[in-house]
Amino acid sequence: MPNPEILSRLARQTPPFHVMALLERAQALQAAGRDIIHLEVGEPDFPCPEPIMAAARRAMDRGDTRYTPAAGLPALREAIARDYRERFAAPVQASQVVVTPGASGALQLVMGALINPGDEVLLCDPGYPCNQQFVTLVGGVPRPLPLSVDNGFALTPARLAQCWGERTRAALVASPDNPTGNRLAGAELKAMAEFCAGHGGTLVVDEIYQGLCYGEGADSVLRHTADAVVINSFSKYFGMTGWRLGWLVAPAAWVPAIERLAQNWFLAPATVAQYGALAAFDDEALAIAEQRRRLLERRRTLLVEALAGLNLPVVGGAEGAFYLYLDVSAYTEDSFGFCQRLLEETGVALTPGLDFGATHHPERYLRVAYTCDESRLREGLARLAGFLRQ
Amino acid sequence: MPNPEILSRLARQTPPFHVMALLERAQALQAAGRDIIHLEVGEPDFPCPEPIMAAARRAMDRGDTRYTPAAGLPALREAIARDYRERFAAPVQASQVVVTPGASGALQLVMGALINPGDEVLLCDPGYPCNQQFVTLVGGVPRPLPLSVDNGFALTPARLAQCWGERTRAALVASPDNPTGNRLAGAELKAMAEFCAGHGGTLVVDEIYQGLCYGEGADSVLRHTADAVVINSFSKYFGMTGWRLGWLVAPAAWVPAIERLAQNWFLAPATVAQYGALAAFDDEALAIAEQRRRLLERRRTLLVEALAGLNLPVVGGAEGAFYLYLDVSAYTEDSFGFCQRLLEETGVALTPGLDFGATHHPERYLRVAYTCDESRLREGLARLAGFLRQ
Repeated sequence: MPNPEILSRLARQTPPFHVMALLERAQALQAAGRDIIHLEVGEPDFPCPEPIMAAARRAMDRGDTRYTPAAGLPALREAIARDYRERFAAPVQASQVVVTPGASGALQLVMGALINPGDEVLLCDPGYPCNQQFVTLVGGVPRPLPLSVDNGFALTPARLAQCWGERTRAALVASPDNPTGNRLAGAELKAMAEFCAGHGGTLVVDEIYQGLCYGEGADSVLRHTADAVVINSFSKYFGMTGWRLGWLVAPAAWVPAIERLAQNWFLAPATVAQYGALAAFDDEALAIAEQRRRLLERRRTLLVEALAGLNLPVVGGAEGAFYLYLDVSAYTEDSFGFCQRLLEETGVALTPGLDFGATHHPERYLRVAYTCDESRLREGLARLAGFLRQ
Repeated sequence: MPNPEILSRLARQTPPFHVMALLERAQALQAAGRDIIHLEVGEPDFPCPEPIMAAARRAMDRGDTRYTPAAGLPALREAIARDYRERFAAPVQASQVVVTPGASGALQLVMGALINPGDEVLLCDPGYPCNQQFVTLVGGVPRPLPLSVDNGFALTPARLAQCWGERTRAALVASPDNPTGNRLAGAELKAMAEFCAGHGGTLVVDEIYQGLCYGEGADSVLRHTADAVVINSFSKYFGMTGWRLGWLVAPAAWVPAIERLAQNWFLAPATVAQYGALAAFDDEALAIAEQRRRLLERRRTLLVEALAGLNLPVVGGAEGAFYLYLDVSAYTEDSFGFCQRLLEETGVALTPGLDFGATHHPERYLRVAYTCDESRLREGLARLAGFLRQ
């Protein structure tokens, strides 16, 4: 019988997402016939847009299902670069773009390309939970960049500079951010990128929610500076979650080395997904994405208004992505237990703050993903209100 | 201007495949109108089998394009386990199976699960070139397991034991093997697995060419022992290269930890690919795979007979996969230069031995992938014969 002690420290110490335990329980309840309202997973309820599906089908019909170059189809790299130039006025060239297996693949490549064992990487707290694992994977040391609730967990250039240390080699920030929906202004991004570069490091900007902005239009750090590396994905704005396709943008001089890592680690991103993504920047697909963005904006407005009446303040800007980060401390100092009870008693599934960091008092917060339609959101809100009145 | 010196040691030291330079040159020649015979890439010329494509199309039509669990669709894990039981008489359960983004994802998970920084991993030389990078990715130290041409680069339990050291924690072997096509007998695999387990380590068996056997029927190490971890893929036997879908089989007790790594690193394998793969074990798809295996066997016979007349001895068993490893030392002590000249002068692309290791005198060898149909193979052989006569 194989010995479980044989597993590496990495394997034994990698934490599960707390939401996974809740999701499993939610699925068990659902299988037993309960009506569950899923507001816990970072995946909207929209299907993959038809123009993207049609392009994927055409690739299959042509037999285009074989390996592509490791950095992706040249035409897709060019389409991504063109989109930066046309929609974001950012001077990106195809030679800077590497197509990856999801944003996950892009994060792994960027950390692999920049971080030596022992190097430190600043990660916002609260922030996206997996980022730590891409740092430790390559032997780096994740350091929290603790944000303060006093300014809505907003990152500032001053805060970044304050946390930068001797061994810091990169800071990973997101705009729009998960879980707060905060956005960073161009001038702030530029200042942070220049600070990092001036200190022998690199600013890495996660723009996977790039198109999903409410209020101000979408933007890219690359419009403001060339001193940043960008992570992006077809999953969220373009509705391609299960296709697992993302990309990164880096200085052209770094790309050959990143491409070698991609060759060795991934061989290539998935082929049919790439052909599908080639249609993502066409007018028809962009119109669908925009229509969905407006639907998400309506859901956001509905939630923000209703939550105001429940004494559940929204923390942070909620200016992008499809999340609201809520302060539940009026009701509990244990948001994980709160989520468990809420699920058991009402069938509403949310994500506890524990999944988004350790230093920001996560036990006071939880995340709502507005990934259901308005009638389900209303139903979820009614159940939540009933639960809070108990 | 970003500083290239900022890149990590990993990024700067990761070697490209030598074949990539040749492939690039071959594509440039082709674009300029030359007729190139591609015998360099590990991808057969067959399209993805229609039953798999049909299942993928049905998933798309149903809108099944969203995230799956990190370890894969439960139905696919069950189908893979059942296939081990039915075709290979190996007692595998679904709880032991993790579906991955290609065999590449499986290799990363297995190394991540087993190797601590500084641990050593034995890798056959000659062997598959990327394996080293999965070891170094997690801070492990790849050690060559040098094989001798005197017995056709065959691995033996005695050789493995001889190379096992104080810090060795795993040995990665392949059956059938790339580039030699050697296969390991069940008794040898069992002996090696028990040796590794008895020395606090793990035998990892790469079975990605499992179905592609000539002579003896296909087999799995898991029929002979439970003390091994298996890497596999839908790419080769099932013709799903560009879909990037593989799997691993590990002791059930290790799977929760491996699943946590998969959650963090990959989120999930590609969804439509998984639905396609669900059809791979049906009679119809298996019949297509078997028909292709027979075609590959005919190509192999054609090549082996023709090469015997050219004083290019086949080294190793060539009992599986779709490769022949050739000794070109009668003509050159620089097989890379030989491949370059052959390509320039005749348009035939092969892979130099340098891509398969350092300790086995790679400059004396090259690999032929019999991934073209018989008429193209005959044409390639004729050009090669002319080149050798010069």
